[in-house]
Amino acid sequence: MLTVYSDDHRLQDGKAELEGGKLVPCYEMPRRADLVLARVREVGLGEVVEPERFGVEPILRVHEAGFVAFLQSAWDRWTATKRTFDALPFTWAVRGMRTDRVPESIDGQLAYYSFDAGTPITAGTWRAASSAVDVALTGQRRVAAGARAVFSLCRPPGHHAAAGYYGGYCFLNNAAIAAQAFRDGGAAKVAILDVDYHHGNGSQSIFYRRGDVFFASLHGHPLDEYPFFLGYEDETGEGPGEGANANFPLRWGTGFDLWGQALDEACRRIERWGADALVVSLGVDTYKDDPISRFRLEQGDYPAIGRRIAALGLPTHFVMEGGYAVEEIGINAVGVLTGFEEAA
Amino acid sequence: MLTVYSDDHRLQDGKAELEGGKLVPCYEMPRRADLVLARVREVGLGEVVEPERFGVEPILRVHEAGFVAFLQSAWDRWTATKRTFDALPFTWAVRGMRTDRVPESIDGQLAYYSFDAGTPITAGTWRAASSAVDVALTGQRRVAAGARAVFSLCRPPGHHAAAGYYGGYCFLNNAAIAAQAFRDGGAAKVAILDVDYHHGNGSQSIFYRRGDVFFASLHGHPLDEYPFFLGYEDETGEGPGEGANANFPLRWGTGFDLWGQALDEACRRIERWGADALVVSLGVDTYKDDPISRFRLEQGDYPAIGRRIAALGLPTHFVMEGGYAVEEIGINAVGVLTGFEEAA
Ligand SMILES: [Zn+2]
Ligand SMILES: [Zn+2]
Repeated sequence: MLTVYSDDHRLQDGKAELEGGKLVPCYEMPRRADLVLARVREVGLGEVVEPERFGVEPILRVHEAGFVAFLQSAWDRWTATKRTFDALPFTWAVRGMRTDRVPESIDGQLAYYSFDAGTPITAGTWRAASSAVDVALTGQRRVAAGARAVFSLCRPPGHHAAAGYYGGYCFLNNAAIAAQAFRDGGAAKVAILDVDYHHGNGSQSIFYRRGDVFFASLHGHPLDEYPFFLGYEDETGEGPGEGANANFPLRWGTGFDLWGQALDEACRRIERWGADALVVSLGVDTYKDDPISRFRLEQGDYPAIGRRIAALGLPTHFVMEGGYAVEEIGINAVGVLTGFEEAA
Repeated sequence: MLTVYSDDHRLQDGKAELEGGKLVPCYEMPRRADLVLARVREVGLGEVVEPERFGVEPILRVHEAGFVAFLQSAWDRWTATKRTFDALPFTWAVRGMRTDRVPESIDGQLAYYSFDAGTPITAGTWRAASSAVDVALTGQRRVAAGARAVFSLCRPPGHHAAAGYYGGYCFLNNAAIAAQAFRDGGAAKVAILDVDYHHGNGSQSIFYRRGDVFFASLHGHPLDEYPFFLGYEDETGEGPGEGANANFPLRWGTGFDLWGQALDEACRRIERWGADALVVSLGVDTYKDDPISRFRLEQGDYPAIGRRIAALGLPTHFVMEGGYAVEEIGINAVGVLTGFEEAA
């Protein structure tokens, strides 16, 4: 399997995130992608290539122009206020507040365009995030050109980023942009399967009213787990998208017995829906030792995930998302890919 | 003028708040109320009395029961998760997210019931906040019984707290609870005049659809300033509340020339509306040296504020809100009160 990778991910290297009352070192760190790449090489998964460059147009197919302009300029505007450390927002527009007017000040815009205090904007954020999009689009192009499967080793991750806001360590939604690129390249129906521990709220919201992109997600139940405010089973899509969204929320402590059944059901839903291409949001924070998550998957479970996905028989584009048990992230993520290859 | 005060405010003594990327010592600190009290005594403003106790019923006239139960139990539930430091939320339900389901986990509820990362919940938060309500209700009772004016030296402040969420150093909306108590005590029409630097988003939202409580606020423009997502001029109330809300947003750098004109206009609106009692949300973070604010009022301007308010000729209940130039907070806040007394 081909891997697409760029060192540019290292430009996103935040110092700290807010975790319930403390600023702690960022869980989402460059070493994550470095160790996944090392494991790709160690197991001989296949060639590793640099991304092509696609510019901002494919990003604007999914994200709002104002949001993209904000991300491009945020660091310069932040440091223009004499602050040299990473930027975090500190307030948000909750229920009853207005979102029809965009504040002008940088702190107001950080608030407007985000949903958490865990996702620092740094000097290199835009370059890292847009390069991750290029990694995703390069993988997408190879799959569209006929590859059975490609692995886009994206970092920063993307699935929490919505059309108009960032959060959850995600700035641009790599998987959603890739799914849109499949559509724009001629695929009539695309499915996204999100196996990250966290609900892919960004991906869901981007395609929620669309009938051409199916979104299925297995994740920590919103009653328990971040991002808390999307991911329930009764979110099935709206308007033309009705029936094209499937959530499998699972309570804390879920192991592979239950998780695997939910995966099977998600795959059956995708089979019934009949996609032409599959984007897999590949997070491995489902792992039992993940420091911020509470499922109980074991190393040996990850190849089984790959085998089940392979059984869908679809052109498959793996896009890296979360996973914070850093020392095991390569084994687990690449375990999915080698499982896929065994069965494909 | 009588002052109502309780030492219980010291039970709210948070360690840190998030300010755009850093955890910094809380601007909202016990010394604030201590110095206001010292100034009250220094100028001989009048008697200082302890609050009576009113229990939770008057709080529930303004705040949602689920929110109040959350505030009462939050610290115990937080520490039950083995965290001994102050609790801050780290994510929020922004546009497009669901607010019809309340998460079950404590981190999810912190997210649901808040709107910023600057308002730590500590061991003493509930006792301090509910005691501040008692301070407000004791003052309200004295005014309702015939006093020309009373000063409720509330801390923590209240005007950012909405019916169902906290933030901006505020947990329970002292001024709104007092205004409701005037209504429940027989006043047909009550006005709230909010002169704090920040928009009183909580007070506005609580009474936005009601025609019996007029809310007027002078504040940093939401395009520039926290809380960013309410406080525009075109927010004039809804339904029965249409016409009973008046915002005077002012840009950074505003001095007393412009601010005083806006105060005059706000007072004329209250005169035209014809209130039976007036609650003043008295913040002095409009001061030129306030560390988190950007207006340019001078010490000599504060008595003029008091004089203009006195000219309304209404039974007047001053409720302490913000002000973070701590060493000058007593001079400025009590300056408003002595100015009022000179003119009343
Ligand atoms: Zn995740
Ligand atoms: Zn204030």
